Amino acid sequence: MAAPALARCMARTGVLPLGQAWGRAPRLPPSPLPAQRRAFSNNKVLVELDESAGVATMKFKSPPVNSLSLDFLTEFCISLEKLENDRACRGVILTSAVPKIFSSGLDITEMCGKSTEHYAEFWRAVQEMWLRLYSSNMVTVAAVNGSSPAGGCLIALTCDYRIMAENPKFSIGLNEAQLGIVAPFWFKDTFVNVVGHRVAESSLQLGSLHSAPEAHRIGLVDELVPEEKLKDRATAVMQQWLALPDHARQLTKTMMRKAVLDRLVAHREEDVQNFISFISKESIQKSLRMYMEMLKKKKS
Amino acid sequence: MAAPALARCMARTGVLPLGQAWGRAPRLPPSPLPAQRRAFSNNKVLVELDESAGVATMKFKSPPVNSLSLDFLTEFCISLEKLENDRACRGVILTSAVPKIFSSGLDITEMCGKSTEHYAEFWRAVQEMWLRLYSSNMVTVAAVNGSSPAGGCLIALTCDYRIMAENPKFSIGLNEAQLGIVAPFWFKDTFVNVVGHRVAESSLQLGSLHSAPEAHRIGLVDELVPEEKLKDRATAVMQQWLALPDHARQLTKTMMRKAVLDRLVAHREEDVQNFISFISKESIQKSLRMYMEMLKKKKS
Amino acid sequence: MAAPALARCMARTGVLPLGQAWGRAPRLPPSPLPAQRRAFSNNKVLVELDESAGVATMKFKSPPVNSLSLDFLTEFCISLEKLENDRACRGVILTSAVPKIFSSGLDITEMCGKSTEHYAEFWRAVQEMWLRLYSSNMVTVAAVNGSSPAGGCLIALTCDYRIMAENPKFSIGLNEAQLGIVAPFWFKDTFVNVVGHRVAESSLQLGSLHSAPEAHRIGLVDELVPEEKLKDRATAVMQQWLALPDHARQLTKTMMRKAVLDRLVAHREEDVQNFISFISKESIQKSLRMYMEMLKKKKS
Repeated sequence: MAAPALARCMARTGVLPLGQAWGRAPRLPPSPLPAQRRAFSNNKVLVELDESAGVATMKFKSPPVNSLSLDFLTEFCISLEKLENDRACRGVILTSAVPKIFSSGLDITEMCGKSTEHYAEFWRAVQEMWLRLYSSNMVTVAAVNGSSPAGGCLIALTCDYRIMAENPKFSIGLNEAQLGIVAPFWFKDTFVNVVGHRVAESSLQLGSLHSAPEAHRIGLVDELVPEEKLKDRATAVMQQWLALPDHARQLTKTMMRKAVLDRLVAHREEDVQNFISFISKESIQKSLRMYMEMLKKKKS
Repeated sequence: MAAPALARCMARTGVLPLGQAWGRAPRLPPSPLPAQRRAFSNNKVLVELDESAGVATMKFKSPPVNSLSLDFLTEFCISLEKLENDRACRGVILTSAVPKIFSSGLDITEMCGKSTEHYAEFWRAVQEMWLRLYSSNMVTVAAVNGSSPAGGCLIALTCDYRIMAENPKFSIGLNEAQLGIVAPFWFKDTFVNVVGHRVAESSLQLGSLHSAPEAHRIGLVDELVPEEKLKDRATAVMQQWLALPDHARQLTKTMMRKAVLDRLVAHREEDVQNFISFISKESIQKSLRMYMEMLKKKKS
Repeated sequence: MAAPALARCMARTGVLPLGQAWGRAPRLPPSPLPAQRRAFSNNKVLVELDESAGVATMKFKSPPVNSLSLDFLTEFCISLEKLENDRACRGVILTSAVPKIFSSGLDITEMCGKSTEHYAEFWRAVQEMWLRLYSSNMVTVAAVNGSSPAGGCLIALTCDYRIMAENPKFSIGLNEAQLGIVAPFWFKDTFVNVVGHRVAESSLQLGSLHSAPEAHRIGLVDELVPEEKLKDRATAVMQQWLALPDHARQLTKTMMRKAVLDRLVAHREEDVQNFISFISKESIQKSLRMYMEMLKKKKS
């Protein structure tokens, strides 16, 4: 076919004839999180950029379980923004440097015994992570090389494509209901876009963690590969996506995701206030303390 | 995993730490159907409550085909409301006490040769049944042990989970188009939420009755089991759902179903008037009389 | 079952008791394209009407690749409108008289080096084709007997049912992104209604052309049959759909498609202006000229 050849040619030359286009690329409103000015430990997200390929790899390295602390989220957003603004980078592969876990989700210590201001700052960072990743102009591929509950699952869902290690011990899902918590509406919207309404409804109600084979069967991940081939496969998939001219792909992505992105942007502060009032309840605090106790006992 | 253990613990103790929560449980507007004051034959819906398990079974027993008459619907709504308000009940299994049929759907005799007032009362009862069941705070499992056309299918679709007897002679579907009737928009919305747009579009246009295996293939029912194991399987599924803390599960359900529920609530009277003006047409009355004649001849 | 028998009887007699109905059949606003008055070469769309069956076949015959030129689209719309108004016609089968190709999509020569007025006229004709076909009161079956990229795929998606020749060399898809072009929102809406959000998102971003087997797997086509049986199978499927009473089927179709139709109707002129400003850009014109050069070289 001629079209793929042209596409590859346009993609390769860099001087796409399609610099301007029908419609506009998405632009997020200014972030309420002054990420650039926050001090943070610059070592939870390792970034490697292959300039010749135009592909960066972001490796989560926050042992023991890559939990999404405020520091992690801040570093993640800053790293992503840098890549977004780097013309040498057209795609990002997200993966984990910690064995057996992709990310365990939101860090419970950030939600327990802290001030209202802290809760607000933390929740805005969670929103920011999702807004930036779901609207990224780059191709985003999740190479899920370990378990990925709750917020970890959200990161994978937010990418363009999900490849998971073919290990039945690894599981993935929005299991918030298991902890007595309700996933926010934008977690839900992202999930419905991937697996459809019926599967999302029962999976969210049950707080299901799906084994890798089951996750593949319900469409939560796009393909499974043996763990040792995950990296190569992610690179190959990325090449396939980068063979397309960026601009048309970006506008198409915006068209598909705009409704769901707009919904959070329109209700962002409301969503923060909901989170604060929910998490500040004594009943919830007690439940989270119980949960952390259980985790500690399990460890020792 | 620690999370399921905590969930089970919270679910068992009854004193969930999550009595209040982020968001609010759904509350229907006051019903225009004064169900509690209607006289009705209290024997079309058998209710058995297993208090130790927190699970009720509602058995449809209105031979020959469990058609949804005004009496049936009234009794169904009252029974459901009682269970909803009973703290000892957390889940309901819907099934049939009549062999080979789950429910044949709306009772045509209620729609033929009656007064405008009667049509209005009947239609409000149909709406009420759906509104209460779709928004129920309880876990609702349909144990479909027979054929389930039209309104019978709607009842199954409205539950959280559908298990069907593995009998290829049993069929299920919204077959209204076969009778020259259009399924109301909220039947359609419920159907689309379960099977997606493409399948709903052709199935509704063709008025398809799907055999049990086909219904499973298209996602209309979640699983098939041999008929003799249906009851046990429904109980096991219910246990799985009840292992979750109620409150998070309820709020999640509301989040998933609110848009579709709100749509009928906002257009309820309009929907009643549409039904009345449709069903009152001489052409429709003639068509329904023809249909009832055919049923009578078939019987004799 | 009695219901199908009644349905067949009502469908056969022609004097359906359901002449009026609950709700109203769709009516498009007056077309801005005065199709009836355009001169056109009346030979790109062959129409054969089998009056006894109530079924017309529209064969695309515009070699070499059935590209959707302004002439083709005008003829298509006029032919479709005639059939729509012909009481003897209840269903249409769309297929190709050109070997190996169903339709190659929009004619690029109509978009290259022409006046603004021409672009507007062309785009309105594309909209018109989709609006008429997606809202047709007739049963529409696509018998896809060749490859069907871009606008060709749109025609198939816009029908009620899609049967494709079981030839792995034939492909189908909305591959606009391969040419650096973004599919309009109503192409996307139609696609999402058929394959769901996840598949549409990656397929549109990648500009995927799916082989026949893959197209079947993702639901883009409803079934595959050996090429020599395609015509017979399309006729059999049509009979199945025509066994239903027209009126209920038409109202059901309207109910399913109205939201997506309304969206283009509400934004029609805006969509025309978007197209003009996009296609008029020098970068796009250059890209299209490159593409046409490639096609020419390939041919010679």
